[in-house]
Order: sequence, then structure tokens, then C-alpha cells
Amino acid sequence: MPKNRDAARASLENLYRIFTVTEAPDSTLGAIDQAITGDVAGFLQTHIVAIERSLEEIEADFSSFAVPEEPTYVSEYTEFVKENLVAHSVHTASPAFVGHMTSALPYFMLPMARLMTALNQNVVKVETSKAFTPMERQVLAMLHHLVYRREDDFYPKWIHNSQHALGAFCSGGTIANVTALWVARNRLFAPEGEFRGIAQEGLVRALKHRGADGIAVLVSERGHYSLGKAADLLGIGRDDLIKVQTDENNRIDLQALREECRRLRERNVIPLALVGIAGTTETGNIDPLEEMADLAQEIGCHFHVDAAWGGPTLFSGRHRHLLDGIERADSVTIDGHKQLYVPMGAGMVVFKDPTALSAIEHHANYILRHGSKDLGSHTLEGSRPGKAMLVHAGFSIIGRKGYELLIDTGIERARTFADKVRNHPEFELVTEPELNILTYRYCPPALQQALNEMPAQQRTGINLLLDQVCQLLQKYQREAGKTFVSRTRFHVARHDMELTVLRVVLANPLTTEEILDAVLAEQCEIVQRPEIQTLLHKAEELCSCLPKAASW
Amino acid sequence: MPKNRDAARASLENLYRIFTVTEAPDSTLGAIDQAITGDVAGFLQTHIVAIERSLEEIEADFSSFAVPEEPTYVSEYTEFVKENLVAHSVHTASPAFVGHMTSALPYFMLPMARLMTALNQNVVKVETSKAFTPMERQVLAMLHHLVYRREDDFYPKWIHNSQHALGAFCSGGTIANVTALWVARNRLFAPEGEFRGIAQEGLVRALKHRGADGIAVLVSERGHYSLGKAADLLGIGRDDLIKVQTDENNRIDLQALREECRRLRERNVIPLALVGIAGTTETGNIDPLEEMADLAQEIGCHFHVDAAWGGPTLFSGRHRHLLDGIERADSVTIDGHKQLYVPMGAGMVVFKDPTALSAIEHHANYILRHGSKDLGSHTLEGSRPGKAMLVHAGFSIIGRKGYELLIDTGIERARTFADKVRNHPEFELVTEPELNILTYRYCPPALQQALNEMPAQQRTGINLLLDQVCQLLQKYQREAGKTFVSRTRFHVARHDMELTVLRVVLANPLTTEEILDAVLAEQCEIVQRPEIQTLLHKAEELCSCLPKAASW
Repeated sequence: MPKNRDAARASLENLYRIFTVTEAPDSTLGAIDQAITGDVAGFLQTHIVAIERSLEEIEADFSSFAVPEEPTYVSEYTEFVKENLVAHSVHTASPAFVGHMTSALPYFMLPMARLMTALNQNVVKVETSKAFTPMERQVLAMLHHLVYRREDDFYPKWIHNSQHALGAFCSGGTIANVTALWVARNRLFAPEGEFRGIAQEGLVRALKHRGADGIAVLVSERGHYSLGKAADLLGIGRDDLIKVQTDENNRIDLQALREECRRLRERNVIPLALVGIAGTTETGNIDPLEEMADLAQEIGCHFHVDAAWGGPTLFSGRHRHLLDGIERADSVTIDGHKQLYVPMGAGMVVFKDPTALSAIEHHANYILRHGSKDLGSHTLEGSRPGKAMLVHAGFSIIGRKGYELLIDTGIERARTFADKVRNHPEFELVTEPELNILTYRYCPPALQQALNEMPAQQRTGINLLLDQVCQLLQKYQREAGKTFVSRTRFHVARHDMELTVLRVVLANPLTTEEILDAVLAEQCEIVQRPEIQTLLHKAEELCSCLPKAASW
Repeated sequence: MPKNRDAARASLENLYRIFTVTEAPDSTLGAIDQAITGDVAGFLQTHIVAIERSLEEIEADFSSFAVPEEPTYVSEYTEFVKENLVAHSVHTASPAFVGHMTSALPYFMLPMARLMTALNQNVVKVETSKAFTPMERQVLAMLHHLVYRREDDFYPKWIHNSQHALGAFCSGGTIANVTALWVARNRLFAPEGEFRGIAQEGLVRALKHRGADGIAVLVSERGHYSLGKAADLLGIGRDDLIKVQTDENNRIDLQALREECRRLRERNVIPLALVGIAGTTETGNIDPLEEMADLAQEIGCHFHVDAAWGGPTLFSGRHRHLLDGIERADSVTIDGHKQLYVPMGAGMVVFKDPTALSAIEHHANYILRHGSKDLGSHTLEGSRPGKAMLVHAGFSIIGRKGYELLIDTGIERARTFADKVRNHPEFELVTEPELNILTYRYCPPALQQALNEMPAQQRTGINLLLDQVCQLLQKYQREAGKTFVSRTRFHVARHDMELTVLRVVLANPLTTEEILDAVLAEQCEIVQRPEIQTLLHKAEELCSCLPKAASW
């Protein structure tokens, strides 16, 4: 916190000044913009994270807990922010930051976001958003069209229909997934005869009405953690978020899925929804959507596709077939802040049936009145900014062909990187990139050979040591601040155990092959550190202690 | 949609250019910023909404439903946005726009928001946010301190504690309220013996475990509509969101509240939470929080206070006593985008017990690992922008005293306006401003007198006509685009019926007395329109048809 507050007194005069943009001396506003833009640009060119201070040290700058009594000069606060916040943030746009679902943003997103802030519309109601309402509805229609490709006379009927909404714009994929399952739940228990619907009567009476003992959501074990939150929130319980095992390609095992559905029937539990994944968070794989759609149809349950990551693959003529079957989903989640290259905080969910969102419709007396076009009557969230305009800007400026290029480039680059990993003697590719995500780990040739030669059940000790190597390697690389990959942990069929692996996401168009080489080169350097060498020696010893392959 | 896309081809070269901020010619970025800022500033000075085009006409500009095939020039798109979106948005910052919870923003919010977009942090995890994590935790601690004023040695222990969170930063008040009730529900049904908790086992088994037939949330009939969504979402059902009647000051009727609690006991339904309101959306009133805290304590249930609007009154030495008892609440919602003067999309909820949020804790393998400081393990939302920095900026630059001045000024201005309405022969003040919100309606002197002289049950016909007057008046005023008030509808004790009323929110520090005079003057003009005169004549006729007061 800045300390010198003497002259920034809280007076009526100062108050008016601070609220009057036109009163702010051009130099002030310009200087802040410039200082900040310049700073960000400088920051962009040097490193991913500052290396000189640990999180604990940074915390000391953010440890006072009382709102400061006196006002501060804007210029003084700007200095504080530059030194203590900006300098210690993470350069998520760096082409060497390939560990999470981040990227450089198209430059026009900055002025557009600034405009959005300046206009400060609230799209919950038309009275505080006017043109932003049809604009958001258009964005949802475009997304709907991308997924469902309904006939041309379908859209004019629904796009600006005051009674309905083709989807919901959300703060992110989590709220989008929650909204989809909320709609599915409320449609399963729609009003019928004396029963006034679950929205009105609640889950207990809804189950009684249907004579069921519970409801369940089925998704592969690679499902996003937001589905667990949804199961908790909606009263289903995490026990009945059924995590179905995956095949060796991280896709849901259809046989196992059928088996789980059968078990639910035995327990008198209704399958509320099958959730297919189009781009798993950890490995980027796509579930067999056609077959899941068939099954959902067969058992008569909602089919949701979580395409938060992979949805924009639909822009690609070459790769869109990977998502075949998505057009049969009842609902689809796609994130704007992922592969639509919009700043953080933009999720969307679209529904095949344009009347589906009526299941969660709500009204209020001062807004959202019946028949109004207020967007808020069909969203979980209330007051919301006009963020859809950034998706609108992306769609308009980048265009279908631009997004196609982005998608194709990312997938191609991931294949290139996979080849590099595969051909490098010291690394083991764990999952192939179906889209632009892959996982691998450090594993020197001798250990790779030994592991290949021994039966899965003997590999545990060595793999546990390699897990530790992986964890340390990722930590040291992150702390060094030059390049960044993430790590995760999941069951790997080939080794028949959970492994810790390095994870790479290639969505930033500025990431070059040279940078990918540098990532691997840095990792080869880091493993030379004594702590890691000790672990590797232990693993080698373990190999030599075990009986030779020939004797098994 | 702009049409000329010929030259903005989707090529790799163009793609790199668009993602490289430093490559964007200074003039481009600067020109967009300038064009947009200039445009907004121009727009600010002239009107609240454009009057030349209806919503239906605007929809025509947003009616194509396919993502454009080809890219477009940024400059061309900017023109489109200026003409079709900006020019037809709503000037929510105008000092004459006093109908909703909007205001001018402090000018520094613009460059700060731009910085936030440029850095594009994702605060769900430290790896993509670093310093933004302790910054957000500090903001939550400051809000906690504002509400609970815990002892000084409390905060150092909890503020940066990796196991816990003092609150959750949300996209808005709705998610904040949902989070509060979710936590309350999960704490009511915490793991106990063989029962593994509602998060795991779901609502049905949770109720069975407690031997109860349901759970209910109690709030006054002025409660925000987000609570209905929460009751639906959480599986409670809207029937068991018990809307308790209010007294003549729009505060919850404590006797009725007790009575509802008794009825729930008879039905074997557990009261999950009492919700007190600190600043009702429609009338700005504050429930008797001390007495509600007493009752919650007596019956052993969660006490939540929805202070989305009124929370910042705690900054005011003169008015904070109005919220006495809030410090006894188990959870409190406060919106940043309301009286903290932050741009749209910032809600917060704080919990008295720093371990409360453990009830909804969740983890994932690639982030949110146990023991990490990742903020995402205690929030409903997943990926989120670093919006807490805008609250941090407000707290730091405006300071406690600055916010006090804003709050005091708003309340004072509301009292001034109430006096104007009361003293104006043609208006009837419906609700007094306890904070900075008030409601009133147009009602000429003859009708006021007639209504006063007749018993409540005779007034229906006249009031129905006045409702129509109110509705038309608000509509015409909105369409004229000079000044703006909103309208709502609620039960008015004095007339013993639901009335449509005009609603004014005075939070914009730039709103002057002259503007308030202009609002009333414009309304007096609008009622001269023939449609409204016809309604008023009918009302007068109705008066003369009814038996004279003396004969009752």
C-alpha cells in the first residue's frame, strides 16, 4: 500500500474531479495509460515471472487488512501497482508460457475491453444495455449455428425472440456447465399434472413424483472439476457424478458407460445427463460423441458436451470431423477466453432446443418482466458486463478462416512437439496430441528400456521416483521464469498406474519451434541438479536390483 | 456487420501481426483508443439513449447468424461498433440516469481495467496469477474487516492461509448469494459419523440423515430475485424460499418471521438460513439485523445478510449504525460494481468463520492441489480475471473517507429529492429513503385527496389507472432519452395493494439538484400527453362516481 496520502484529501471537490473523466487532465489519463502500456510491453519482453521474490515475500505487500483511511493520489497508486502487482504477475501471453490454456491476445481486444469498461453496460436488462442486448443474442446465435448448423429459417425466428434464448453468456465454463445441468435437471422434473416442477417443489418431491431414488451425471474420469461442483450444488451429490473409466486414448469407455447406466437402473437412480468432453483439460482428447449421442437417445437422457476447450475446432475444415456428433448434443459449453482468444471471463452454453432455457426462467418486478427482452431472465448470473462484445469482435475481425488458421496451427505445432519428444532419448511421450494438448515426462533411456522390459506391476517403485522427478522439474522450471509447462496426474493405461506428467498446451500462435526446443533443452539442464540426479540414481539402482527381464 | 473484408485476409502473416501488440502500429492502437474514448466522451455529453431507433430496428444490425467467413480490418470493425453499438448503448454514467444502480465511474478505473485486460491473469491458480492471489486475498480481508472488525491478530493468521479463505470473489451478487447459501447448506449437512456430508451424498440422503422433510430459506418479500434462483439451483425449491411479509417500512415483520419458523417446524422442515437485507433493491431499506441475528442464534440457523447494495454504508460514521447487527451475520454479500464504484462484474461474499468455505472446498490434479494457495479451491466459479484489483484500486485511491463522502452525499441527496417530491402537489412519495433509494408516483392533488378520504378497499380502480399512468410515464421518459428513472411494483401498506411506482437511485455523485428538478419537470410535461390525460380523467370520473367521503 502506498503511504503518502496527505494531499489526496477526501473533499467534495476532489470527489467530483475523480468521477469526471473529462476533468481528468489529459496528461493524467494519458500518462497512466502510457505508463501501464509501456510497463506491460517491457514486462512482456523479458520474463514469464519475476524470479527475485517468492509468493510469501509478495504477500507482505498485501497484508494490511483495513481499508486505508485517507485517499491516495492516482499517480502514487499507479506506481505501487507497477512495482508490486504488475512486476510480480505472470506473463500468461508469453509464447514460452505453454503450460496452461492461455495465449497472447489479439491486440484489438485491449481498446475494445477499455470501451466495454467505459460504457459499463449491464446486460441483465435492456434499460441498461440497449444495443448490447441484440449484440449478445447475435453472438449466442452464431455459436449455436457453429455447433448445430440449423437451417437458415430457424435463426430469424429465435435470435431476438423475447420469450426464449438460444443460450446463456456466462462468466466462464463452470457457470456454463452448471447452467446446462441445471436446465437438464429442471427439464427432467418438469411440471406434470399436480406436480409443479422441481424449480418450485425441490428435489425431494421431484424424486418422489417420479418414484426414483436419485439422479446421476455420467462423465469420463477426465471430466472437468466443475462437474463435481455442479453435482454438489444441484443437490445430486458427488457420489452420483459417475466417473467412467477411459480407454488408452483418454476417451470414455463406452462399454463401461453402459455398465454404469445399468447399475444406476438397478439402484433406481435416473441418469440425468451424459457428459461428453470435446477437449479434455488434461490431455485434449475428444470422447466418441456420436456413440454417446446414440446412448443418450436410447436411454432418453440429456446429452451435454463440455467443449469449453475444443469447441472452436469446429472452425477448422480439416479437424471439425473430430467433433462429429456434437450437433446432437442437447447443450454445449464453449469458452470465449480459451480458443476464441477473448480476455478472461467469458463462457457460453448453447441449447439445441431454443425453448430449453425456459426451465430456469425467472422474473422480477423492477426488471425481467414477462415479455421483456431482458437477457437476465434466462441466466444464472444477474448483473453482467457486455463481454459478449469481445466475442463479437473476435468473430468479426478474425473471421471463420482466421480461427481455422489458429486451430490448424496449434494442432500442427502440437504434433511437431510430440515428434520432438518422441525422438528425444530422455523424454517419454505419455499422451499423443489429438488436438493441441499433450503430456510427457522426463525418463532417461536406461529407465525407459528397463520399464519397457518389466511387467507393469514391477514398475511402481521406479514410476514413483519419476513422479518426484517430474514434480521437481516442473517446479524449478516455473521458478526460473524462462519457460513454463504445467503438470498433472492421471491414470496411464500403459503403466497401469497414476503418473505425474508434464502438460503442454499449444494455443499461442506466437510460440515457435525454437521456443519448444528451448523448453526441452532447459528441462535437460534442470535435471542435472543434484536433488533430481539423486532420484534418478535411486531409480537406476531399483532397476538393477530387480530380476532381469529374461528371468520373468 | 461490416461488409468489406477483402483485404483483411486470413494468412499466417496477418495472424502474427494481430497477436503482436508491439507490431500494431502505434497509430492503430492509439487511434482506436482515441476514437473510442473521444466517442464515449462525446456520447456522454449529449443524451442517455439514442432516440432515433427502436430496439427492433437495432436488432436488424445484429441479425446475421453465421460467423463471418473472412476477416475484417480492425478500423472497419471499430467504425461499425461506434455507429451500431456505442451510439445505441445506454449512458449509464449520466448524472440524469438515476433509475438503476449505476453511476459515473472514477476515471482511474479505465486505465486500471485496461491493465487488467492486458495482463489477462487467471486467478483460479497461482501459476497464472502470482501477485494477484495475495492482492485478491487482501481485498477479501479488507471487506471482512469492514464488516466484522475482528481483532488485529485475527487477520495475519487467516489472510494468506493456504487452507482457508475469508470469502469469495464472484462475478456478481447472485453468485455471491448462491455461494453463501451453498456453504450454509453444506454446513448444515456436514459429514457426521457414517454420513459423509451432503456434498458427497446429495440432498435426499442428507435429509434422511437428519430425519427432516425439507429445508427452507427465509427472507422478506423484498428479497432479491437471486435468492429464488439459489433455492431452485440448490434443490430446495422455490416453495421453500419463504417470503415473509414486511412492515410499513419495507422491513421484515419479525412476528411473521417467527410464525413462519414455527410453521416450518410443524412441517418438519429445517430453516437453512435467515436472510437479512441491507438495502433492498427496490426501496433501499434495511431489515432489523440485530433481531434477526438473535432469532438465527435462537433457532441455530445460518444468518446471511444480502448487503449487495447497502454494505458500503459501513464506511460512513454517520450512517453505519443502520447496519448494526451485520457483524453477527455468518455471511455477507457486498457488490463491488454497486457502491464501491467498480465496473460491472464484481461481487463478493465474506464469512465470519474463516473455515466456513471448507464446506465447498474442491481440488483437481492439475491445479487446486491440496495445500496450494490457488484461489479456485474455494469459489463456485473456475477461471476468473483479476477484477479484485479494481476493488483494491478503489479502496486505495478513494479511501475510507472518500467512500464515506460518497455514501453521505447520496443519502443526503435522496432526502432532498424526497422533500421535493413531498412538497410537489402532483407527486406522491411512496417510500421514504432510508439509504439513497426512494419510490414515488404521479398523482395529481385531486386524486391524492380523494384517495386519502376513501377507505383502502375503494381505491382499487383509481390505483389501477394510476399504475397505467406510471407505466406510460416511465416508458415515455425512457424513450425521450433526457432523464431516466425506473419503475417497479410492490405491495404498499398504506393503500393495502400492489402499486406500480417510479424508483430513483441516487448513487452518482455528479447528479445535482438541478437534474432532480429537471426529472420532475419532465414528468409533469409527459403527463400532458393525451393517452395519459385520458387515464387521469377516467380516474377523476371514478372519484366523482364513488360516494362522498362524508357518507362512509
